[in-house]
Amino acid sequence: MTGNAQPGRVGYRDIANDLRQQIDSGELPPGSKVPGENDLTSQYGVEQPTARRALDVLKNEGLIVAKRGSGTFVREFKPIRRVSPDRLKATSRGSGQPIWSTDVGTRPRTEDVTVDVELPPAPIAEVLKLDDSARVVIRRRRYVVDDKPVQLATSYYPEALVAGSAITEINTGKGGAYARLKELGHEPTRFREELRTRMPRDAERQALDLAQGTPVILIVRTAYTADDQPVEVSEMVLDSAAYVLEYKFTSHD
Amino acid sequence: MTGNAQPGRVGYRDIANDLRQQIDSGELPPGSKVPGENDLTSQYGVEQPTARRALDVLKNEGLIVAKRGSGTFVREFKPIRRVSPDRLKATSRGSGQPIWSTDVGTRPRTEDVTVDVELPPAPIAEVLKLDDSARVVIRRRRYVVDDKPVQLATSYYPEALVAGSAITEINTGKGGAYARLKELGHEPTRFREELRTRMPRDAERQALDLAQGTPVILIVRTAYTADDQPVEVSEMVLDSAAYVLEYKFTSHD
Repeated sequence: MTGNAQPGRVGYRDIANDLRQQIDSGELPPGSKVPGENDLTSQYGVEQPTARRALDVLKNEGLIVAKRGSGTFVREFKPIRRVSPDRLKATSRGSGQPIWSTDVGTRPRTEDVTVDVELPPAPIAEVLKLDDSARVVIRRRRYVVDDKPVQLATSYYPEALVAGSAITEINTGKGGAYARLKELGHEPTRFREELRTRMPRDAERQALDLAQGTPVILIVRTAYTADDQPVEVSEMVLDSAAYVLEYKFTSHD
Repeated sequence: MTGNAQPGRVGYRDIANDLRQQIDSGELPPGSKVPGENDLTSQYGVEQPTARRALDVLKNEGLIVAKRGSGTFVREFKPIRRVSPDRLKATSRGSGQPIWSTDVGTRPRTEDVTVDVELPPAPIAEVLKLDDSARVVIRRRRYVVDDKPVQLATSYYPEALVAGSAITEINTGKGGAYARLKELGHEPTRFREELRTRMPRDAERQALDLAQGTPVILIVRTAYTADDQPVEVSEMVLDSAAYVLEYKFTSHD
């Protein structure tokens, strides 16, 4: 019962609390259909706006997800696993039992690659230690699983370092950008990932087709050569409902 | 203009879009006061519920934050930096220029430590490779910065491994639990952190005093000995508005 509710009258928070309890207890398991606005109006004897507002609370909490044309469902968490340092090996020696099960077989597909040469945003120029007039090669792409975009990624390379290499082409060739950087004498050997999370901006929500109540994970990875020269900065925006991240390290790192 | 709005009439989305644009452009900078419901009703000629709903959209997006008794403000992001592997060193050799500035001087204070001996939750028992009857020592605490809780943490240790040590006491002594594990012949040398993010559950929102539109970061860290024995699992729940995480690794890890 909320402060605003009349005694004995059912408010939107009461309905939200009921449904949340059913989700938490497993009575409404992941993937199951949630009662619709019409079901709730008749079940609780409330008006449509009250029922809608109750469902909206749970959508903002990320507990339920509306699917166009088929109703509203308890959210399922079936993530892919992104492992660092050895991101490419889904399972590796001594990883041990993970806390969250993930779909280790799935590898996102790269889509819509573009390559541009531009002046970098100021924070990128700073990280790459570039002066005001230095341009960067910018590679943008999306990662997609089963036609659902799961990640937006933008990588920046100092133009002076990579001009003329396949890093300036759509297809970077076997081994990708890191293999090309190595050939150019700038092999990345040390990496830093900075990570934060927040609710998405409008453009991110649309580009990743995010359900209400879904945060994004922002990762900025900087790659350094053995002599501490930054050679690549990558900005990533991840659908938080699609990923578990895993980092492994030793006390001697 | 939304689908529901009459032509020429201002809807809550129009107001939200206006304010969002002012925040994105810096016209309303971080920390500045946002017009209140009364300001918006007179400015846009709308009813109170429309103004309230517009503000609610931006609260759910995490862009504005209501402060009890003083109004609503553009959210500021002044995070602390959590660095792995060398979490204790705020700055370290060769870290390079970070993408997000953080308050490197601030170290959260530990509060409300409790120690219990219980049967572990099933996923924890699995990660620690314990059989059904094996109990664990559970250390729970909060981390606080300036009286604001920023992290909830729960660590699990196999009872058979740590019984009789200071790990079972409120104060673990100099060097903490890892120093005690080393003395017991179970030095943790290898770590795995699994990480995901989602909107908070009710209890988390209350315990961390989270503003609307603030996700939580969940980290589960497992510590292993040199012979791959798991000796500690820690579950952490972080206020995403309080943290930037940093991971460093090399291609030879």
